[in-house]
This record gives sequence, C-alpha cells and structure tokens, in this order.
Amino acid sequence: MNNEMIENVRLRSDGAAVEILDQTLLPSETKYLMLEKPDELYDAIKKLRIRGAPAIGIFAAYALYVISRSFIADEYDTFKENVGKQSAFLDSARPTAINLAKQLRRMEKIVDEHSGKSVPHILDAMREEAEIIQREDVEMCLAMSEHGLTLMRDGFRILTYCNAGPLATSRYGTALGPVLLAHERGHRLHVFCCETRPLLQGARLTSYELLRAGVESTLICDNMASTVMKQGKIDAVFVGCDSLARNGDAANKIGTSGLAVLAKHYGIPFYVFCPTSTLDPDCETGAQIVIEERSPDEIKSLFFSEPVAAAEVKCYNPAFDVTDFSLITAIITEKGIFKAPYTESLSRFF
Amino acid sequence: MNNEMIENVRLRSDGAAVEILDQTLLPSETKYLMLEKPDELYDAIKKLRIRGAPAIGIFAAYALYVISRSFIADEYDTFKENVGKQSAFLDSARPTAINLAKQLRRMEKIVDEHSGKSVPHILDAMREEAEIIQREDVEMCLAMSEHGLTLMRDGFRILTYCNAGPLATSRYGTALGPVLLAHERGHRLHVFCCETRPLLQGARLTSYELLRAGVESTLICDNMASTVMKQGKIDAVFVGCDSLARNGDAANKIGTSGLAVLAKHYGIPFYVFCPTSTLDPDCETGAQIVIEERSPDEIKSLFFSEPVAAAEVKCYNPAFDVTDFSLITAIITEKGIFKAPYTESLSRFF
Repeated sequence: MNNEMIENVRLRSDGAAVEILDQTLLPSETKYLMLEKPDELYDAIKKLRIRGAPAIGIFAAYALYVISRSFIADEYDTFKENVGKQSAFLDSARPTAINLAKQLRRMEKIVDEHSGKSVPHILDAMREEAEIIQREDVEMCLAMSEHGLTLMRDGFRILTYCNAGPLATSRYGTALGPVLLAHERGHRLHVFCCETRPLLQGARLTSYELLRAGVESTLICDNMASTVMKQGKIDAVFVGCDSLARNGDAANKIGTSGLAVLAKHYGIPFYVFCPTSTLDPDCETGAQIVIEERSPDEIKSLFFSEPVAAAEVKCYNPAFDVTDFSLITAIITEKGIFKAPYTESLSRFF
Repeated sequence: MNNEMIENVRLRSDGAAVEILDQTLLPSETKYLMLEKPDELYDAIKKLRIRGAPAIGIFAAYALYVISRSFIADEYDTFKENVGKQSAFLDSARPTAINLAKQLRRMEKIVDEHSGKSVPHILDAMREEAEIIQREDVEMCLAMSEHGLTLMRDGFRILTYCNAGPLATSRYGTALGPVLLAHERGHRLHVFCCETRPLLQGARLTSYELLRAGVESTLICDNMASTVMKQGKIDAVFVGCDSLARNGDAANKIGTSGLAVLAKHYGIPFYVFCPTSTLDPDCETGAQIVIEERSPDEIKSLFFSEPVAAAEVKCYNPAFDVTDFSLITAIITEKGIFKAPYTESLSRFF
C-alpha cells in the first residue's frame, strides 16, 4: 500500500517471542522490543506499547501462544487450564477493546478443539491460528479501505482522531486505511489530526504515519475541532472503534463522542470504521460497554518531554474561537443577566 | 472573598514598575516580576505571563503609565505622540482580547483630555485612571459574581474552561467569581476544570485557584467534556469572554465553541461571563473578531516538564467514550458500509 509501511507486531521466527514496535517512544525513537514473559506481554498492552483494538487482538493471540510454549506440563487438561489462566491474565490488561477478549477466546477455542491431542500438536495449531488472525486483519483493513474510499472524492478533507492507522492494526489501518489508499491512487486529500489527550496518539502516531506516507496533514489540539469544522475545512470525520454494541453505539478513544456531536451540529458526516471482529454481541447498547479508567498522572504529568510530534508536522494553533450567540443561554455582566436577542438586550452597553 | 486571594497585578508604589505574578510558572513556582521596559511589558502580554482579558486591560493601563514616565520630552505634543506609539506597541502584543485595546484607548483619552497640561500633571491623571480601571474591575467582578450566584443552587456542578478566575482579572474572577462567592457563603458545589490545550490554563491555573480556595474540583482533558455532560455530572457551563460582538457572538479561548455545541446537545445551560468592558461595539458579529494564531510549537512541544497540575488535584481519566448510534452517519466494516438502524443492518455479524 505504501512502501514505508510500518510493521508493528510480529512473531519472532523461532516462535519464542513477540516483537513489537514500542509505540510509547514514537515519534522520537523507533525501538523494537522482544517480549517473552507473561508480565512483559501484559505490560505491553497495559502501558500502550502496543495499542489499537485490532493490533491488541493480534498481539494477544501471539502472546498467548508464546506463553503457552513455556508450559512444562504435558497433560492436556493441565495445559488447557494454564492456557485459560494466562488468557484471563492478558485479558485483564485493558477492559474496553473487545478484540482483546475476542481473539484470546478464539485461541482458547483452538485448544478446546484439539482436546486430547499432544501439546506440541496443539501449539502448532495455536501458532497457525494467531498467524491467520494477523493475515485476516491485513485483508480486513484492505477491504474496509476500499469501502471507505467510495465515501471520498478528490480534494477530500478528513478529520481523524487518536490513531486508527497502520500502527493500530497489523498493517494499513481502519479509519486511516482509505486515506492511505486514496493517496496511493493519486487523489489529493488533507487530513486534520486531533492530538488526542492525554496520551497524544494523534500527535505522536497518526501525524507521524501520515508524514511518512507523504499525506498532507495538519495537527490540531482536540479543542480546535469545532473551529475547523465551523470554518468549512472538514468534509467528513473518520474514526476507529474499540467496541461496537448491537444498536450501533460505538466505544472509541475518549473524545470521539464529542466530535460526533460537533459533526452533527455542523452537518458533517461522521463515519466509524469498525472491523466485524470489533462487534460485541454481548452488548445491546453502549451503556453496557465497560469503560477503562486510567491513572490521573496521565493528565497531571506530561510524560513526553521530547517533542510530541515530528518537527515537520504542520500545526494550526488558533488561540480563541467564537461561540455563536444561538448557543449561549445567557450572558452575565456586572449589570445583570441578559438573554437573546442580544443585539437588543445588550444594546445600551455598546 | 477568600483569604488566600492571589494578587496578580499591581503598580509598584513608586510608580516605576508593574509587578505581576508570572502565570507561566504556576502551579510549580510563585514568582513575582517587576517590569519597567517597553519590551518586557510587551513580552509579558505576548508570552502570557499576564493573561485573561480583564487582567490584560489593567496591566496595559499600568504599563502605558510606567512607560510614559520614562519619556524625556516635556512638550505636550511630543508626549502625546510617544504615548500613542507605545500604546499601539502594547496593543499589538495580542489581537483578540478587546480589553487590551479598550483600556489603552481609555488611557490615551486621559492624555487627550489634558491637552496642553504639564507632563507631570498628565502622568498623575494617567496613574489615577489606571488605578480606577483596577478598582472598577474588582467591583465589576463582585457585581457579576452576585448575578451569577442567582443561577446556582446548593450542590451545583459547573464545568468551566481555561481560566476566568482571580488570575484572569484583578481579583475574584468572572466565570469563577460566583463559584468562589458561593463557596464562601457555604454552598456545596463541584467544578469540573477542562485542562485547556495547548497552554493548559485550566490545569495550571483554574484547578490551582480552586484548590487554594478549598472548592471541590475535578480536572479533565478537554475531550472528556462530552462524557461528563452525558453522564449527567454537569448542571451548567460557566465560561469567560475575550470579546463580545453586538449580536452576542462571544470570542473566548479556543475550544469554548465546542463546549457550547456539546452543552446544547446535552441540554445544559451555557453561560458566558462578560464584563461590559469586553463588549466590542465595532463588531456586528463574531465573524469580524480577529482570532490570534499562535506558534505551532505550543502544540508540538510540551513546554511544561514540571507537573502541570498540583499533586492534590483530583482528575477523571476515562480512556474511551461511547458515541450514540444516532450521531453516526455510517459504520464501515470490511463487509461494506452500513446505516441505521444498525440493530438490523449489522445483525448478521453479531
């Protein structure tokens, strides 16, 4: 799709480690980690070294395989029990992205289906399944990108959020997939990336991916989305999804719902890119989706002392915006409380 | 109003310097600066050492007086010309907050009204006028706070943005004024502070002011406002104002307009606290308000290596939110593009 495609998760050829690009160090440092131990693998999810619902699912499948290789027991029942325990352990790293639970369950199902078989035989099947999960992800992203492309036209201007690009999947990306595909096919386009506080995945990852791919983009703070929408700079909002309820309620990075309200207000289409693997059949509505709550320190301390976006990234940084009078319930001055129409109610002060 | 009231701008008693609390160093360091030279005074506005529309207006009035004292010319016409030049220089530091231009014009008017008088006499009148501007600000904030208080009830939960507290004015604050007044009078209340990217005035200043005053508060990232509103945690939004057009369109810190759209969507009152000194008679609508654009480095580099909020500040840090299906134009999967009702259109994948 593009030559500079980043490979962010793979099984080491000997099968004894999962190799990942540490996403917490981007864009300043490109460092790959070899992870073998359960705690390291768990931490990689917990601390967002690997992130993005599809990527977490792939990683977890490989991780469960790598951990299962180290079990000493040769007994099927003991093996299965250990796999179950480690699967539950990995699953507990983050609660919201459904892919984590789903791909782990799929790996456990392989163990179930090979009841009574030898452990080496089951391990081979697990490795094969994890590799299928990754291959399916690549195909899924490509297919989704083709569908997404039909929503775009030449000169299209997209607002995106968090990271739903190659780094969030195995390759290509979900919401960013059609963008990269369109760019490859020579369409002109422009992407506004919201930085995505507190962990700045938009600034650190999405704007970095777009820069590498050569797609024109502008980085903004999350609170600037209303302004660029109002200015008519956005044709559509493209976002990813961490879990989708049966009624279509979509869990995604904090801030997504606010963008959706803004898009509706400004009459801009709001598209959710969601692999079918991200559908959660157990959730009737979004009210049932468990929302992860993370450490206050992510807000209070800024962990990123390095620049948080590459030097070449273009930014838009207006210091103020204008709130339309129609959105203001009342204006309070030292002379009293005034309501619309303000042209009349405030006229004596002008 | 509260014993720990922060004094953020004053004229040194000998009249030769403006003393300010450097707001760029809060909450880590409480440092006062003595500013005498035109460049220092200009930079204090430009670099946000002093900020908040009312506070900038007071500061500029004192600054113009301090600079005017240093003019050598004794001739009225030369003096007036120099005052005009320095006023234009200070005014150019930031374009959006109308108080800067307005209070400078008010100081120039004093010079006009004393045509032909001796320079020492005019300087006395200028100092008096600047002191009146500051006194009026204190009275204005108190009066506004009393009006704002009528909008609140016991147990009220307010979302506020950027900093419209004591630090943004001479004392008391605009949008935060009624909060502090209510607290002083023993009302229970809770304030959600948006951190306000890129310069984090909400995290660094508002949550610090509330902590000092003993008001219960929770710090959130700007992109979390939609979630706390949806959860029913917010009774009203209180924001300040940097410039108000005749039709009621209100310029304020970038991100304010987005909060107003969210408040309307969730049926929450949205109140703008705006001293009459912030009304701009030359602007018919917000479209005519000049919006300051600042350096991209404020977004790309995080200037604050110290913690950006005091250690005691309570935070709420959900990692995800749920977007209501009614706000989603279409869901794109690898199997195609689906529209509402999603319960039916996506049913075969669940």
